Amino acid sequence: MHQKISYLGIPGSYTYIAASKKFSEIEISVPSDSISECIEKTSKGITDFSVVPLENSLNGSITETFDNIIDSGLYIIAEIILHIHHNLLARNNSKISTVYSNPQAINQCKHSLKKYKISKSIFTSDTATAAKIVNESKAENIGALASKLSAELYKLKIIKSNIEDNPNNFTRFAIVSKQKPQAANKTTIVFSIIHKPGSLVSALIPYVHLGLNLTKIESRPVFGAPWEYLFFLDFESENVEVIPELIRLMKKEVNFLKILGQYQKGEIYET
Amino acid sequence: MHQKISYLGIPGSYTYIAASKKFSEIEISVPSDSISECIEKTSKGITDFSVVPLENSLNGSITETFDNIIDSGLYIIAEIILHIHHNLLARNNSKISTVYSNPQAINQCKHSLKKYKISKSIFTSDTATAAKIVNESKAENIGALASKLSAELYKLKIIKSNIEDNPNNFTRFAIVSKQKPQAANKTTIVFSIIHKPGSLVSALIPYVHLGLNLTKIESRPVFGAPWEYLFFLDFESENVEVIPELIRLMKKEVNFLKILGQYQKGEIYET
Repeated sequence: MHQKISYLGIPGSYTYIAASKKFSEIEISVPSDSISECIEKTSKGITDFSVVPLENSLNGSITETFDNIIDSGLYIIAEIILHIHHNLLARNNSKISTVYSNPQAINQCKHSLKKYKISKSIFTSDTATAAKIVNESKAENIGALASKLSAELYKLKIIKSNIEDNPNNFTRFAIVSKQKPQAANKTTIVFSIIHKPGSLVSALIPYVHLGLNLTKIESRPVFGAPWEYLFFLDFESENVEVIPELIRLMKKEVNFLKILGQYQKGEIYET
Repeated sequence: MHQKISYLGIPGSYTYIAASKKFSEIEISVPSDSISECIEKTSKGITDFSVVPLENSLNGSITETFDNIIDSGLYIIAEIILHIHHNLLARNNSKISTVYSNPQAINQCKHSLKKYKISKSIFTSDTATAAKIVNESKAENIGALASKLSAELYKLKIIKSNIEDNPNNFTRFAIVSKQKPQAANKTTIVFSIIHKPGSLVSALIPYVHLGLNLTKIESRPVFGAPWEYLFFLDFESENVEVIPELIRLMKKEVNFLKILGQYQKGEIYET
């Protein structure tokens, strides 16, 4: 029997493409309108895995994903990185004046859209949905910003390819499941500390002693509770045997600490 | 002569409300469609100050703001924090089936919208623009998610107030200008370090020695250049005389460091 995978968007979305790097087409079977809906399906046992975006090199962390992973009690078991390219898609070559896509994609192409004199944009929940709308619409002069796979799936022409303003556009995706984490070369944790001078640095000293490499750190403002701070942290360690020692040392310095995932450092794929 | 202020959105937007805490109505005179357009007006001298959102307690940092501040060579000279409340606004009490607002506001009210059986949403660039559209439209059954001030400005009724799903919804705004930073109790810096074990912690040790309080730290993934990391950091210091020493000590450990702003710790205002 196949496993079932829930993912953000519909076939052709960037999350669908990320999922396709690890699972078969038949398995990537449960499209989802939102990150919370997607992850909920795995926590309720409707799907075996969820694939969701974690962060983008231009827009930063997707806090909704981290919050839903914490609340669900699921774990990150793999990461996949996509080099994102947006393409202008349409049914034919007639002049495009309105473009459909999700707000991030439109924002990431705004200089190109100005150059092509496309002044009107309509937001959709994901890029593949934009391609589907253009395919199904009778309106002339409309286009979509979406992946090359969306062009194929929704029978649209690629009018302009790779029109993102900044080529340094990468998104990191997580595969999330009920499987308990197992030691691997990359770890994601969340922790909170008492807000006082030196407390964050004290919590980080064990990384220096154990020679571990922090690859991400992010504080989350809790404006309503000015003495509470939440930190999200990724670290790499080829020697997985030091990880329990690290967690033990950190726990002495923090209020709360939870491992959100352990997984192999992911590869980068083109789109 | 009045000063000129550019801000994100149109009158009634949350950024407009933030601006109104520091400037007069006449001064807040240059609405802007985007953060980059807003900041560009100040760097070109068309306005004296820009007011833009920096981060939200639920969605994290607004990377577009930080990137535009760095590129513009402008500085943060003040911060303002708003407790964000979304309200369902309409022309009259008829049943609402479609709601207009910006994507963040719709996402932050999605449980409420489900409860009120409002299934369709249409995205706008900011919440006040949604209220303006509802005011100008002839369509029945449409509403907007926006501020109470937008209800007043665009002559709409408040059908439901404070319908955000999570009450812990705060946005921090910055006032940005050409004025050179002057020592104050809060500082924002950006720096980059060589990606090797211990390098981040070494850069942070001076905070412990000088007894300074980190209130925010965030790494920015540069996936295309895996050995380059950018960090954004806020710290507080009642004793401003130690700041030059801190910068001197940090510069020994980092590749690059820039002060993005020095300002007084901001107050929280209700909306």
